[in-house]
Amino acid sequence: MKEKTMPLYAPPKRSAESSPLRLGIVGLGTVGVGVLRLLEKNAAVIAARAGCALKVVAVSSRDRHRNRGVDLSGYRWYEQPEALVDDPEVDVVIELIGGAEGAARSVVKKALQAVKPVVTANKALIAVHGVELADIAQKNSVPLMFEAAVAGGIPVIKAIREGLAADHLYWVGGILNGTCNYILSTMRKTGRDFAEILKEAQALGYAEADPSTDIDGIDTAHKLCILAALSFGMPVDFSSIYIEGIRHIGADDLHFAEKMGYRLKLLGISCLTRNGELEARVHPCLVAGGHPLGYVDGVFNAIVAKGDFIGQLTLEGPGAGAGPTATAVVADLIDVARGSTVPVWGAYHSGGSPIRSVSRDMFEGPYYIRVDVNDRPGVVADITACLRDCGVSLKSMLQEEERYETEGTFKNVPLVFITHSTLEASVMRAISLISALPQVVGQPVMIRMIGHT
Amino acid sequence: MKEKTMPLYAPPKRSAESSPLRLGIVGLGTVGVGVLRLLEKNAAVIAARAGCALKVVAVSSRDRHRNRGVDLSGYRWYEQPEALVDDPEVDVVIELIGGAEGAARSVVKKALQAVKPVVTANKALIAVHGVELADIAQKNSVPLMFEAAVAGGIPVIKAIREGLAADHLYWVGGILNGTCNYILSTMRKTGRDFAEILKEAQALGYAEADPSTDIDGIDTAHKLCILAALSFGMPVDFSSIYIEGIRHIGADDLHFAEKMGYRLKLLGISCLTRNGELEARVHPCLVAGGHPLGYVDGVFNAIVAKGDFIGQLTLEGPGAGAGPTATAVVADLIDVARGSTVPVWGAYHSGGSPIRSVSRDMFEGPYYIRVDVNDRPGVVADITACLRDCGVSLKSMLQEEERYETEGTFKNVPLVFITHSTLEASVMRAISLISALPQVVGQPVMIRMIGHT
Repeated sequence: MKEKTMPLYAPPKRSAESSPLRLGIVGLGTVGVGVLRLLEKNAAVIAARAGCALKVVAVSSRDRHRNRGVDLSGYRWYEQPEALVDDPEVDVVIELIGGAEGAARSVVKKALQAVKPVVTANKALIAVHGVELADIAQKNSVPLMFEAAVAGGIPVIKAIREGLAADHLYWVGGILNGTCNYILSTMRKTGRDFAEILKEAQALGYAEADPSTDIDGIDTAHKLCILAALSFGMPVDFSSIYIEGIRHIGADDLHFAEKMGYRLKLLGISCLTRNGELEARVHPCLVAGGHPLGYVDGVFNAIVAKGDFIGQLTLEGPGAGAGPTATAVVADLIDVARGSTVPVWGAYHSGGSPIRSVSRDMFEGPYYIRVDVNDRPGVVADITACLRDCGVSLKSMLQEEERYETEGTFKNVPLVFITHSTLEASVMRAISLISALPQVVGQPVMIRMIGHT
Repeated sequence: MKEKTMPLYAPPKRSAESSPLRLGIVGLGTVGVGVLRLLEKNAAVIAARAGCALKVVAVSSRDRHRNRGVDLSGYRWYEQPEALVDDPEVDVVIELIGGAEGAARSVVKKALQAVKPVVTANKALIAVHGVELADIAQKNSVPLMFEAAVAGGIPVIKAIREGLAADHLYWVGGILNGTCNYILSTMRKTGRDFAEILKEAQALGYAEADPSTDIDGIDTAHKLCILAALSFGMPVDFSSIYIEGIRHIGADDLHFAEKMGYRLKLLGISCLTRNGELEARVHPCLVAGGHPLGYVDGVFNAIVAKGDFIGQLTLEGPGAGAGPTATAVVADLIDVARGSTVPVWGAYHSGGSPIRSVSRDMFEGPYYIRVDVNDRPGVVADITACLRDCGVSLKSMLQEEERYETEGTFKNVPLVFITHSTLEASVMRAISLISALPQVVGQPVMIRMIGHT
């Protein structure tokens, strides 16, 4: 079936007297209920800004009888989310199920094929299947909106796709996962270990029962994939993004970072290399004091974008939560009501095949290397020789004698090395040499760094 | 003449093959030249994002023969800016003359009446005549865009008018003038006096030869007036905004602020009071450590917006300069090319009469009061009695004996008082009592404060 033969989407008319835009919501979790609450509480101001009322007519979720604290009796209920799409009174489909596959994917695809605008908060879906879905949206000239998919309430999609549309961006990244930022901030403030803080975060509801999507960096990578595509005007192959989480970060590393004037953050970073290739990566990163990302603590998110003309722009705000995420969903709905027709990837051309990131060998920057050693005399010379042999130039070294040495015997002592900017391939070679040294205990820890700006 | 009888603006068609959007620029100062450079350097990406080429066809400025470092030979030259508007090949008028009156005002008005979209960077014009101009724009359904008028390259107009359109905002403010922020940051870092740093800033090009618009807070008030109108959905009467500049700030005040964990910033602040009234004010302000505005140094700008659902959003970036301001101007042009039809004040209703801010008597918050006294015994008791008599509750007091007392005689000693949250009317009454005390030298300095969030 050719989508080309289907009728094109006609944006709604804008005037205070317009008939309402009729909404169907699939997925009534925290965000779905937040959207219902926001649409009800701010109905008047939303109508004035949208040019028409936004009216929920149908909902779909797994369990009809769960108490969600909102009255659902005014909405048609669908057991099957796909059936909601077929409802002729649903003008716009709001997808809040989540996940790259299954019902979320089929509902969004079906709605776009039926020339119904889609608003979604689903980062995994857009990161993994965004190219396919954007193609359908573009063929049918129907909006596919996902402001809520990246950084919750921060309007970063709009800032990049519209606000910075005139500029050539070359770097975009930031703190995109509040769970990880909460864990790392709390580790720094308390000096306690990862596992302990994670448990606490789970008890507080800041981390999921299965926290792997957050702490292993997958969630950050989904959001980075979308940001990079918009910033550089090319869909990005999600599977090519380098991803490293925060499980291996020790309290020692946060202590040394603090001591040297750095903060440790899980960052998603993407940039254009000197050869114009795409680089996209997620990993813990030492951020120099004075960098705007260094100040962002707790569950907040922040994004930095750099461009030839703009210089540097920073956005900071709540990256999750029912209220902030709902504002992003409804802002998209208002854009749909106003007749916005911004192209999905920000430019009017075929999306084409997704671009792959360069591999980690090609990453470049300064590095932090922590090596635990059990015998001091000569070991620094041996380690620095490994670095030299791999062409890695050393900037500074730190050893805190008083913390670890006791009673004349040499205990396990952490040594910290900071390198000048270097290729990651060289650093990895040096680390494999260093870890083979007889005085070295366990595996050296390597953490990437970014500078002041 | 009724504008209603004029033809309505029809947004340009969007497709890669569309004919170019033809631009006329009036005003070729720093920003005008920046726009020409940006349109040339990023022509391809701008065309892909706009759906058509953006092509300058005509320019107008005072001195045709001044060397601006760009080739103007390809553009029609108009001595009279109004004549450029009449050029039938000019689709969009870009106003970069500046100033609330004169040519800027007449050109913008004429263009809107002729149903030509206007993009402007003119904060004074929009702050003072925005209601009149928006009315014409709305009657003719023609875009009037001014992203560049507030905070240069930071897309704050878009963030508030579109990104936060679903929320009920109750507070918006920030650092809106880079010149003042540079002066205050440098005073803090160097401990030197206002007059000295101002001279230096003028030599470096960070301050104008006549710096009064910046340092007396007028420029900040223009930008605040626009932000408040968009945030609260009501045009604001510029003349009702309370404005106080930074001329009276002493090196001592920055020293004490630092010592107590505060940074001193010139802020524009607007909020809705408990009675739903508008409060808009520009003044130096002590910002608590940990507040996102406290970290912003140098010529950067930053804006904080607070809303019921979003919580708090912070945007930080370059508030001036040819490059950043040009990105904002061209982003507006891309929006025009894409057919954006966001209403001028963010809502589809008649703008109505501008709303007045409450007077300064009604302001509420904690206050910093510095009193220089020439005789110590009993003076603290006298001053605190004045505060008590006016119902002002004291939070803390600071006196640095070692800095000022010499050789057994009492010299002029600064005493610093921090109050709990209180009405400004009470503080002003207390200060007038205090300044009448015989031990008090000169006029007490009063500086407003904001808390952690």
